[in-house]
Amino acid sequence: MKQRSALDMYANGTAWWETSISDIKKNEIIIRGYPIEELIGNISYTQMLYLLLCGEILSEKKAKLLESVLVAGADHGPRAPSIAAARMAATCGISFNSCVATGINVLGDVHGGAVEKAMHLFYETASLLDTHPEKELSSIVKEKFVLFQREGKKIPGFGHQLHDDDPRVRRLYGLAQRLIEEGEIKGRYLAIAEAYRTQLERAKGKKITMNIDGVAAAIQCELSIPAEAAKGIFALSRGMGIVAHAFEELQNGVLIKGPCPNRDDLVRYSGPAKRHLEK
Amino acid sequence: MKQRSALDMYANGTAWWETSISDIKKNEIIIRGYPIEELIGNISYTQMLYLLLCGEILSEKKAKLLESVLVAGADHGPRAPSIAAARMAATCGISFNSCVATGINVLGDVHGGAVEKAMHLFYETASLLDTHPEKELSSIVKEKFVLFQREGKKIPGFGHQLHDDDPRVRRLYGLAQRLIEEGEIKGRYLAIAEAYRTQLERAKGKKITMNIDGVAAAIQCELSIPAEAAKGIFALSRGMGIVAHAFEELQNGVLIKGPCPNRDDLVRYSGPAKRHLEK
Amino acid sequence: MKQRSALDMYANGTAWWETSISDIKKNEIIIRGYPIEELIGNISYTQMLYLLLCGEILSEKKAKLLESVLVAGADHGPRAPSIAAARMAATCGISFNSCVATGINVLGDVHGGAVEKAMHLFYETASLLDTHPEKELSSIVKEKFVLFQREGKKIPGFGHQLHDDDPRVRRLYGLAQRLIEEGEIKGRYLAIAEAYRTQLERAKGKKITMNIDGVAAAIQCELSIPAEAAKGIFALSRGMGIVAHAFEELQNGVLIKGPCPNRDDLVRYSGPAKRHLEK
Amino acid sequence: MKQRSALDMYANGTAWWETSISDIKKNEIIIRGYPIEELIGNISYTQMLYLLLCGEILSEKKAKLLESVLVAGADHGPRAPSIAAARMAATCGISFNSCVATGINVLGDVHGGAVEKAMHLFYETASLLDTHPEKELSSIVKEKFVLFQREGKKIPGFGHQLHDDDPRVRRLYGLAQRLIEEGEIKGRYLAIAEAYRTQLERAKGKKITMNIDGVAAAIQCELSIPAEAAKGIFALSRGMGIVAHAFEELQNGVLIKGPCPNRDDLVRYSGPAKRHLEK
Repeated sequence: MKQRSALDMYANGTAWWETSISDIKKNEIIIRGYPIEELIGNISYTQMLYLLLCGEILSEKKAKLLESVLVAGADHGPRAPSIAAARMAATCGISFNSCVATGINVLGDVHGGAVEKAMHLFYETASLLDTHPEKELSSIVKEKFVLFQREGKKIPGFGHQLHDDDPRVRRLYGLAQRLIEEGEIKGRYLAIAEAYRTQLERAKGKKITMNIDGVAAAIQCELSIPAEAAKGIFALSRGMGIVAHAFEELQNGVLIKGPCPNRDDLVRYSGPAKRHLEK
Repeated sequence: MKQRSALDMYANGTAWWETSISDIKKNEIIIRGYPIEELIGNISYTQMLYLLLCGEILSEKKAKLLESVLVAGADHGPRAPSIAAARMAATCGISFNSCVATGINVLGDVHGGAVEKAMHLFYETASLLDTHPEKELSSIVKEKFVLFQREGKKIPGFGHQLHDDDPRVRRLYGLAQRLIEEGEIKGRYLAIAEAYRTQLERAKGKKITMNIDGVAAAIQCELSIPAEAAKGIFALSRGMGIVAHAFEELQNGVLIKGPCPNRDDLVRYSGPAKRHLEK
Repeated sequence: MKQRSALDMYANGTAWWETSISDIKKNEIIIRGYPIEELIGNISYTQMLYLLLCGEILSEKKAKLLESVLVAGADHGPRAPSIAAARMAATCGISFNSCVATGINVLGDVHGGAVEKAMHLFYETASLLDTHPEKELSSIVKEKFVLFQREGKKIPGFGHQLHDDDPRVRRLYGLAQRLIEEGEIKGRYLAIAEAYRTQLERAKGKKITMNIDGVAAAIQCELSIPAEAAKGIFALSRGMGIVAHAFEELQNGVLIKGPCPNRDDLVRYSGPAKRHLEK
Repeated sequence: MKQRSALDMYANGTAWWETSISDIKKNEIIIRGYPIEELIGNISYTQMLYLLLCGEILSEKKAKLLESVLVAGADHGPRAPSIAAARMAATCGISFNSCVATGINVLGDVHGGAVEKAMHLFYETASLLDTHPEKELSSIVKEKFVLFQREGKKIPGFGHQLHDDDPRVRRLYGLAQRLIEEGEIKGRYLAIAEAYRTQLERAKGKKITMNIDGVAAAIQCELSIPAEAAKGIFALSRGMGIVAHAFEELQNGVLIKGPCPNRDDLVRYSGPAKRHLEK
């Protein structure tokens, strides 16, 4: 990614809005080369998303695996800030899509962002394996782990606030294994993820589970999705839950829902005691 | 939809965050009654969305039809304000999901909002047919048309700035017809939409085509989706294009892309001539 | 407000981006005719906002009154959905400005939107007084009140969930009175607001107080601000609180703050009991 | 900034919504210790913002200087992505505040974000001066410059796409100088900024000017504002222009304004040629 100003690019002959995604003309809509009418009814939501994002049509089996990831992340209830923000928005008198935007706006580096970080780590680990064929996966993983520890960083993709045996992870892992057995995906990134899990378990001396971010990251690496695309994909996965929760709140017709009821133990002022302006 | 304050509802014994969508407990995620691990890999993105939003699992054929609507609306190029806003956001240094939120935030009453308006009209027309069994569809439609004219309003779902034979419309219409023939959907709302098209054609004395909003509205009515849900569904459809375009811009690495190049014919100041503060 | 497509306007010779607000050229920035360097240091934030929005420079005394309205609405603590949404956003890993946008995005028709509605009502009442010089204010107000009741609507600008003697209202009211006495503003809209308060008190048989929206609306009417501008002005008033609260949360370094702690009484699932997919 | 989960903090006895900014009770609103009714009419917008953000009331002269910064950044016309995004939003049928949020959402690391980066650099330079009293400012600045060059980074706060003698910069610089002479501010950060300008000029062998971000950063450092607060402050400065431009577009009543007119030289598809799905 070069860093140039839009004006410089334009001065060099690029159109102001240059895109390789779609070509829109009168009565013709081309997506990555395909006429839209051939895509509608023939490819799934997930294949369309991959085509738009990555340029090619994913095989049906791979698309089903990616679809499983989208379904798995769709909702985690109103305690998730994204869901709560969208529901609160729905009680404040803005349009439905703006409620959805409010929820998606908060799916940042921290809330859902671990997928991207884990993908970077897994891709980097694979690349180290390629450039150091003499090394074993477990030793590369150990080196990375030591590096992360030294920098005070957490290995992304493991552990969860609430779950220690997340039903989504078990299921996604199983679906991915089936595709490995069928030869549809290689399993390289799932093995890398598993190696990190083992390393963490050994280092901490306790059971460590992959979380939904970790398994989603490994699967998306198997499908050659760029790490930088992860937040956009998650926006459309959790987007489903955001849409549904905002809609439920809109239908309830409740006005101005704040984050919590008026109870003293939930909100506390810790600033200076009452004082007055100097005259 | 009652209009009550959140505090009143809470005072009446409702939980602050009451939902019938999902139940999240340790190692258990229930969606509309279903354990999440049974849904993952077994239902499609579109079925999951419908389940979250409407509470039940759509049949596979119906889900494919709705999926076709989602695929059809995914992109309309960077001249669409939603796509452009997301791409501009991507050059300004905010996180990817916030770029997506920027695009979705503008999919309001005007940009994509015609689907909701058309659904309201089609549902209302069906309801008039039910309560006035003695009347013909064409005469109810004509009365509505006259009413809209008197109020200076456009019948939503017909005509397009660019297309007069939109390939998406033809294709979606054909897919829906197939499902009518198979008995999966009744075709009532497609007939209503067609009746409005005929009425418009007669009144204007020229060829009128249904637009993507019109056919999407008729299909969503066939699937009993509430009109008020339309903007949320479109957010996830156009959301795909928004994600892809923002990603393309992020990968380009261009900085601060405004809406258009620096050319005098594109931006013009029409305010007061230069003046000075009174001393 | 005409409703035309942007393409039609452009076809008629309007520039794509036509504005009477500012003219930006090399080393020259003109705002409503004034060179920016003459404004900087000479006019206040509030005067600049009014100049940008309404085209002229507000007198110092009037600007101080509007500034008082901006200061008064700046914060209402983390139970306000706008403040809470911005704080939650700050724990999710997005940029500071995106946290601010998240908060401002929810300041819609319901949350803060009563100012616009009250301004419409006050302007309309004044216009009825003008066109019916034979009628008394109190009787026009009574007719409006009856009309609102018949339509099941609330008179905007009166009553508050929490306060029944809001210190902001008392103070703003006093500041406005002083300007009436000094002849800076006419007091017409404050009198109209007071007439509605009296009517409500009489009709309900209990003490009714003007709320912050009501007094803010009356003052903005005194300053000839269009009702439709109210949400934008409030965005910059409450924007201060949103900025400060998001910043406090960013500085705290807390991760993923949902709306409420994990306590059973705050979140409740009310959907179907556990069930399973049909095979 | 510690990085802890919200649940951990709550488990340790912190209230879920703990704040030192405001305390809201029935008929009482306390801001940083001050009753709101003492602030309204007595302090300016800028003083209120500083009080909310930093906890204390800024002296009138300092507040005027900060206000000048807010006024200076208010607008840069519809070619700025923030302004354009807000105007486009206004043509799409969402509420006014959501248009404002759309504009503010894009004021990220790149668009306006240089202020924060420059403040970090200036504070760091001052801190190096403190810890290395034996070194001259010019040599510390030179070392920093070499470091930035080595990392391929630009010194933030200098140079502009359009202006090379920005009238805002000249004016703000002059106002700041006056306050130095009056002993209100020390001028340390303005001297640091000037030292970077001189270093850049020497290194590039051509005239280099401070840009609006650079002078705004130096002034905000003089006022002890944390660098991390800069994006929030700019949101309320540029927020004025965003509000005014969105309002102008709303009043125009134009529908669905994309970024540019339909002209072939402005939008270009560069993806694959037309192709078809394999059967």
